[in-house]
Amino acid sequence: MKNIKVSNNVIRRLPRYLRKLDELQYNGVQRVSSAELGSYMGFTSSQIRQDFSHFGEFGQQGYGYSVGLLRNQIATILGMDRNHKAILVGTGNIGRALMDNFCFSEWGIDLIAAFDVDEDMIGIKRNGVEIYDAATLFDFMAGHHVDIAVLAVPSDVARQVADNLIALEIRAIWNFTNVDITEPHSNVIVENMHFSDSLMALNYYVSEKDDSMVCAREVGGV
Amino acid sequence: MKNIKVSNNVIRRLPRYLRKLDELQYNGVQRVSSAELGSYMGFTSSQIRQDFSHFGEFGQQGYGYSVGLLRNQIATILGMDRNHKAILVGTGNIGRALMDNFCFSEWGIDLIAAFDVDEDMIGIKRNGVEIYDAATLFDFMAGHHVDIAVLAVPSDVARQVADNLIALEIRAIWNFTNVDITEPHSNVIVENMHFSDSLMALNYYVSEKDDSMVCAREVGGV
Repeated sequence: MKNIKVSNNVIRRLPRYLRKLDELQYNGVQRVSSAELGSYMGFTSSQIRQDFSHFGEFGQQGYGYSVGLLRNQIATILGMDRNHKAILVGTGNIGRALMDNFCFSEWGIDLIAAFDVDEDMIGIKRNGVEIYDAATLFDFMAGHHVDIAVLAVPSDVARQVADNLIALEIRAIWNFTNVDITEPHSNVIVENMHFSDSLMALNYYVSEKDDSMVCAREVGGV
Repeated sequence: MKNIKVSNNVIRRLPRYLRKLDELQYNGVQRVSSAELGSYMGFTSSQIRQDFSHFGEFGQQGYGYSVGLLRNQIATILGMDRNHKAILVGTGNIGRALMDNFCFSEWGIDLIAAFDVDEDMIGIKRNGVEIYDAATLFDFMAGHHVDIAVLAVPSDVARQVADNLIALEIRAIWNFTNVDITEPHSNVIVENMHFSDSLMALNYYVSEKDDSMVCAREVGGV
């Protein structure tokens, strides 16, 4: 199926809908209204209807959405049926956490190999995925179709390793290094898991609450 | 300093500005124009100026921003000078990756303790932080001021542990469990690191490229 073009904000919400619909399906729920789904997720029902209107009509007035149909449609839009191939580069704590605990196949991604420079790691299989010598990455990429590199190397070598992957024509990088690895207008798709950005946003909201508590006290509140 | 109220989108960009300004400062750059900063980050100079206008006038026409002043102002807005206290709950691979490799203090956060149920972990100190028996969490919270819980427990116990932390009046949760842990309108600040949401957004963009390549071939392109 051809992919449907939707806005970035909608794309960011689709995985959340998917998780919620999976949960509903797991609990045996077959139909859900936009109002119900909205209340579960903190959205208005009109926002839900607007989001889903991007990819065809699934809801019926007074009847709601079919949980299964809607779930499968969202999974298709997210490309979960395309079996994209991924490799993991770097098997430190983060890399190992991904190998051991993150079920790539559940999300339609095929993790086919991992790479490290650490001789103690090379040759080990974790969760069915073998860790190869990073020196063999070039040959591996020449012999295999790889869509996504999961980058989990130490931050001081992140850019260099990313440049190597880009030279090997990697299509996309899932970046766990907390370093911005590409120029803004690069052709490579980069999705960042910047832990510090997330923590700093959290810290801002905590600070905002500090201040609102001070204000409340100042005006004689709690 | 009282925190300044800015929109969510601006808040999400502030940590990125901070990282870039840190990098510029590290490289000895003292002044930067909105156009330069924009080209580094993929924003227009007017977007940069608009973002920074939220928190006072730092730029000077034809002279640019002082990298150091701007960096410190952003750090203050993000609450990095407030020394919020954090605990880590769960010391599996993700938890250990955070203890070993993520420098909380660099971001103004004081990681004061970690907790686990695994007897092999309890009593160990990693990177200066001791791992305590999760059974002592209640007493610890009673005796210490804690702002943020970093939640890195297995997903099947995530909600239960989150509920316990909320009952102990935790202010904020940095959630690594890939599970939605609170109701949408909860008072607790929750910042999610949903790995799968990030991977699915990446997968969408890769799928979009699959299709554009097919289209290009269909019309006689590459």
